[in-house]
Amino acid sequence: VDKLIESFHQGDPVALGRLLREVENQTPAGFEILRRSTVKTGHAHIVGITGPPGAGKSTLVGQLCKAWAAKGLNIGVICVDPTSPFTGGALLGDRIRMQELSKLPDIFIKSLATRGNHGGIAASTADIVRMFDAFGKDIVLIETVGVGQVEYDVMGVSDTVVLVNVPGLGDSLQTMKAGIMEIADLYVINQADRAGAEESVRDLQMMIHEMDRKDWEPPVLQTIATQRKGTNELVEAVERHRIYLKDSNLWKAKRQERNEKRLQSLVEGLFSERFHHYIQSNPDTQEHIQQVRNGELDPYSLAPAIIEGILKGKSDKEDI
Amino acid sequence: VDKLIESFHQGDPVALGRLLREVENQTPAGFEILRRSTVKTGHAHIVGITGPPGAGKSTLVGQLCKAWAAKGLNIGVICVDPTSPFTGGALLGDRIRMQELSKLPDIFIKSLATRGNHGGIAASTADIVRMFDAFGKDIVLIETVGVGQVEYDVMGVSDTVVLVNVPGLGDSLQTMKAGIMEIADLYVINQADRAGAEESVRDLQMMIHEMDRKDWEPPVLQTIATQRKGTNELVEAVERHRIYLKDSNLWKAKRQERNEKRLQSLVEGLFSERFHHYIQSNPDTQEHIQQVRNGELDPYSLAPAIIEGILKGKSDKEDI
Repeated sequence: VDKLIESFHQGDPVALGRLLREVENQTPAGFEILRRSTVKTGHAHIVGITGPPGAGKSTLVGQLCKAWAAKGLNIGVICVDPTSPFTGGALLGDRIRMQELSKLPDIFIKSLATRGNHGGIAASTADIVRMFDAFGKDIVLIETVGVGQVEYDVMGVSDTVVLVNVPGLGDSLQTMKAGIMEIADLYVINQADRAGAEESVRDLQMMIHEMDRKDWEPPVLQTIATQRKGTNELVEAVERHRIYLKDSNLWKAKRQERNEKRLQSLVEGLFSERFHHYIQSNPDTQEHIQQVRNGELDPYSLAPAIIEGILKGKSDKEDI
Repeated sequence: VDKLIESFHQGDPVALGRLLREVENQTPAGFEILRRSTVKTGHAHIVGITGPPGAGKSTLVGQLCKAWAAKGLNIGVICVDPTSPFTGGALLGDRIRMQELSKLPDIFIKSLATRGNHGGIAASTADIVRMFDAFGKDIVLIETVGVGQVEYDVMGVSDTVVLVNVPGLGDSLQTMKAGIMEIADLYVINQADRAGAEESVRDLQMMIHEMDRKDWEPPVLQTIATQRKGTNELVEAVERHRIYLKDSNLWKAKRQERNEKRLQSLVEGLFSERFHHYIQSNPDTQEHIQQVRNGELDPYSLAPAIIEGILKGKSDKEDI
């Protein structure tokens, strides 16, 4: 492990890839590198890209990476794939496009499946970001598909949130309103040559105006990613937002908040482990839980008893 | 409190209203009535209604309540309102419609604001459902707006999930696919006189077919709620689903799972209280957290130390 971490710090992409897997699987080696990497982080600019399926996010990600690479920037890409048991994850075309991208030098792509609870996904994403950051990446790009809380949590790891949409949003705009709409820093209407583009831009601008954000008024950009149109403007807009974050105190504040959130989710995860271990080692508790399941015992009385049990159980062992 | 609980058990709606507020605010009286009510629950059929804003859910809820009331059923309604800082909650028209409904005998309406974390909302909803159930309601109807994880969690409290939509979903269908789409038991296309209704029904049916559900094939219904069209068919479909749940073992299984989930969220809530109390009473920990925030200390080392501290801190006091 020490050798692997040494190679990682020397910039070996093979070591990066192996350690990313350790981190993803939450192995001791993964935690070790995360522990040792903290002081090396805080440099990378983290860009989140989200939007509904079919909005052209992957093509746009490809264009952005090429533009950044041309500027001499090092890029890490995280594809967060909210695998549904029914949809079976990302489209094959997207995967192939990503593979091509990963052949470029200075670009490293990591796919994250989102099985399991959504809190865990945001935590994993935060850890992978930390690794890319410690590895010396200038930009970490997080791509995810627009669905609910997972999207919201994952985008919360970003400095700059880009929301990609296509013309003719219509009713769906209002549905999205209450969620991701409100945390985006840049709005993109992709496939801007399609009918209804101007109207979508106007709708978005009205909505942004209503939100009345302080200091930063999110721009609405138009792109045709397949023709490389508007992508340079998007790169510039991301850079403007980065400078805005740096000039205000937000750059630092976002990092602080993310670090604290990660601590909190780690504490919760550790408690959850203790909780399950307590249940497994206490047959009485298992029976009580069965009674709660059957409506014979109320959960409001059992919960405090379990908490007390976890606290005392631990202390008993330690004190003997 | 004892008197209030006695009135509650005698069927006094004023006592119900007061105790619902105690439960919502998580007061000792609220927990007391929840503790004493567990054995009286398990009778009510819990119906969740969700869908995007403007789909006509409130009108449909009104029609359903009237149809159930005409059958002599007692109904509790929970409006879960995912208040966004920007949208400011439910539309005034909806609120007025609900007020009219609440004047009907045997119908009690409880509004739940969804400020705070989304786990807490589902827990509050589950507690209110429990109260309605213990009060002797035959049906508890939960209405919420279609946004992300809150919607998903709240609908998880239901026996029968009804997803309401309007014609012309188009692209938005695919966006919704990965979330609530998959847990709905009944699909409704409301405003079925609008253009594109047939197409929306066909799209939905295809999607349902793809999902390949076991035993229960969710029907797609068409309604025009404002004209009372199709609502009787919806009432019948809900009843068919209830019978299906009863005949299979799912009715019981859903109750068991919900009871266990509630226990789990209570344990997590209690731990969270201990966690915050620990931080507040330990200046050293506060300083360590500040170091984590600043990237000077890694969260992966601090998290286990905090867990140990919480466990030992408690035990030290108890053992002295």
